[in-house]
Amino acid sequence: MRTVDLIQKKRDGGELTREEIAHLIRGYTSGQIPDYQISAWAMAVFFRGMTDRETADLTLEMARSGDQMDLSAIPGIKVDKHSTGGVGDTTTLILAPLLASAGVPVAKMSGRGLGHTGGTIDKLEAIPGFQVERTREEFLDQVTRVGAAVIGQSGNITPADKKLYGLRDVTATVNSIPLIASSVMSKKIAAGADAIVLDVKTGKGAFMKTLEESIQLAQAMVGIGTEVGRETVAVITSMNEPLGMSIGNALEVKEAIEVLGGRGHASLKEVSLVLGSYMLVLGGKASDLEEARESLKARIEDGSALRKFKEMIEAQGGDSSVVDDPSRMPGAAETVEVKAEADGYVSSVEAEELGLAAMLLGAGRATKESVIDLGVGLVLHKRIGDPVKAGETLVTLYANPGDGIELSAAEQKIRRAYTVSEAPVEKPPLVYAVITKEGVQRF
Amino acid sequence: MRTVDLIQKKRDGGELTREEIAHLIRGYTSGQIPDYQISAWAMAVFFRGMTDRETADLTLEMARSGDQMDLSAIPGIKVDKHSTGGVGDTTTLILAPLLASAGVPVAKMSGRGLGHTGGTIDKLEAIPGFQVERTREEFLDQVTRVGAAVIGQSGNITPADKKLYGLRDVTATVNSIPLIASSVMSKKIAAGADAIVLDVKTGKGAFMKTLEESIQLAQAMVGIGTEVGRETVAVITSMNEPLGMSIGNALEVKEAIEVLGGRGHASLKEVSLVLGSYMLVLGGKASDLEEARESLKARIEDGSALRKFKEMIEAQGGDSSVVDDPSRMPGAAETVEVKAEADGYVSSVEAEELGLAAMLLGAGRATKESVIDLGVGLVLHKRIGDPVKAGETLVTLYANPGDGIELSAAEQKIRRAYTVSEAPVEKPPLVYAVITKEGVQRF
Repeated sequence: MRTVDLIQKKRDGGELTREEIAHLIRGYTSGQIPDYQISAWAMAVFFRGMTDRETADLTLEMARSGDQMDLSAIPGIKVDKHSTGGVGDTTTLILAPLLASAGVPVAKMSGRGLGHTGGTIDKLEAIPGFQVERTREEFLDQVTRVGAAVIGQSGNITPADKKLYGLRDVTATVNSIPLIASSVMSKKIAAGADAIVLDVKTGKGAFMKTLEESIQLAQAMVGIGTEVGRETVAVITSMNEPLGMSIGNALEVKEAIEVLGGRGHASLKEVSLVLGSYMLVLGGKASDLEEARESLKARIEDGSALRKFKEMIEAQGGDSSVVDDPSRMPGAAETVEVKAEADGYVSSVEAEELGLAAMLLGAGRATKESVIDLGVGLVLHKRIGDPVKAGETLVTLYANPGDGIELSAAEQKIRRAYTVSEAPVEKPPLVYAVITKEGVQRF
Repeated sequence: MRTVDLIQKKRDGGELTREEIAHLIRGYTSGQIPDYQISAWAMAVFFRGMTDRETADLTLEMARSGDQMDLSAIPGIKVDKHSTGGVGDTTTLILAPLLASAGVPVAKMSGRGLGHTGGTIDKLEAIPGFQVERTREEFLDQVTRVGAAVIGQSGNITPADKKLYGLRDVTATVNSIPLIASSVMSKKIAAGADAIVLDVKTGKGAFMKTLEESIQLAQAMVGIGTEVGRETVAVITSMNEPLGMSIGNALEVKEAIEVLGGRGHASLKEVSLVLGSYMLVLGGKASDLEEARESLKARIEDGSALRKFKEMIEAQGGDSSVVDDPSRMPGAAETVEVKAEADGYVSSVEAEELGLAAMLLGAGRATKESVIDLGVGLVLHKRIGDPVKAGETLVTLYANPGDGIELSAAEQKIRRAYTVSEAPVEKPPLVYAVITKEGVQRF
């Protein structure tokens, strides 16, 4: 099998066989096929796409390229959850204990943040003592005993995807739906879940800017899940503005605690309930979405969700008293109120600009090597559609002044992120569509 | 300027500026831009194409990447000629002395053969003593004094093209008209000619199989010539069957001598006169094609063309007595007659199959490292349209039996190359179209 013939086949619109895809991915991972052939192939895929079968084969091949987590020792249907990356999105911190409290085991490997989007692992480290690195045995034991564990990704999960993603990043071949979908799904499959709920963000602050693109990506991922026998549901949610009211590590943990305790802003709570309901149904602990939603709300109201979070924190060596006293987490020396300049209605809140503002304060990483400040960030007081008066606070900025901290640049970004119009503005939807193997349901 | 942004611009259908093309080609030649980015860019070019301006800029950038021949010391308009590669095509050996005898200086750098097509430099080496390696000074001096010189390509002509072509060959990005056109034209421009006549082969034995593709390639090359101020004419000629009657190095030199002496088969002679007439007009030695053709025919008839060939051979250290006695060139120990099995009319003579048959006899190179036998090859006795009787010879095969020489495989290929039909077959045209900056003229 000659690699150049496979590139040409894809270039000319052909469908690669399972063996041909295995040749490419195994050869690339082992170093026998050079970067320059794979980048040409990836560009051909950009233009020609891949069939569902090809995409599924690519996914499985990448999933098998490194370590694969075997969760079969944990009783029950293990349901994983993945988000395509947003700002102020703390759903994982909410869903892991919430689902565990409702009887669905959550064995989750998460990533760190890069650029304007945050990472769950960084957020968890705002809890004093919290350990994100666990052995496989500790991880499996904790999920069996407590029902939930969230740890950092193992070093050797899907090395093929890691290598391919690095190459795509410098060859303008990131933006291909089958390549994005297989990248996400290969990691989920290697992580061992039985079922997967995907939160596909759409809108100005998301990787996919339009609803149609987001639906296409969701369909590709659900298609892969179906092909490989892992039931998958994708929920398209809004990233036209940040999901929660907080951006920054300790601040987001605090907001997650609020939601788990039955408080917190409606938007983060609502999306958590939607995603969680699908997880509960896939996990076999509710027969339909309505029952699932009621069950999750009950876990919040009776305090068991918050107790489960404490249990999870303790199991991972963390100080669970932060749940009752969030001020035990890292904080900020200074606060600045960014205020509205005119009366009106908030018509836009740019998630990406706010994410970048938080990054300027040190809450996120500009490069992989950046060190982040867990205590800083932003708390929003106004969302799209909210009425506002001149002088009212839009955002509170939490900062620790120091070297390289660009407070005024952050303030400017926040001002640019907000647009206030004179005419009333309707609140945008939180959930746009749900994609299952049966089809697309739009709201 | 980030390379990934330029790849993306081309991927999305944008037009790269001169500076952007310079960044890519200079960076690639110097090793600052890696293969994997250039192969992704080349695949994007395959899908998106390039404008005439981009193609011209790419050509000039590659022409300038290494040595450039300065022919200005030679008086007169220097006209170069290039063929896209055919079987039994000895026009360069005919045109160099013929044009020189008519007053147009020909300073030509040629290549060696690879695969089923022959190379002029190999053919010339069939002449005992002939030197294809000359210093720049010797080369310029010979063209000034004799009017013609044909030498091997200097090592450092268009290194950017050499590197890019090697990469395209293994990444399925060869078959892109702007990339092929700029590759050919960069070498011609670096070789220093004032005007260029291109012989673009079309048909089953050619790189471009259809007339429309061949015309597109010709238009791209003429477009580049026009953009960079080198008048360029492209003639589309047939490669449905071999151009001449001989395939193999000494055999082809012998046929060239026949044509220069006013004998030889009409097909090779006719295409040589067509190409030569354009060269004579571009070289300013004839005011129109009719006058040019008469002038060239006169040089053949009065023996001056053949005398010029002797002069050129002597100037390059060769034994010019081969012109009168071709048996002084390397020969073959054995001949085999491949005969027709039935009466009828020849309906197809596959040039590629015959080229491969000659290669099996040792006349051509399977790989760059192959050593060739200058004495072996094929002589055709029948062309498309010729009537044939059972038992009549179609092809005489000249062989030197020895290790690795596959006589019976060559014979089989020759049989497969010929199709004889019962019904009469019309002779196909030799010239299909001429492309000048004014447009396309079809015949």
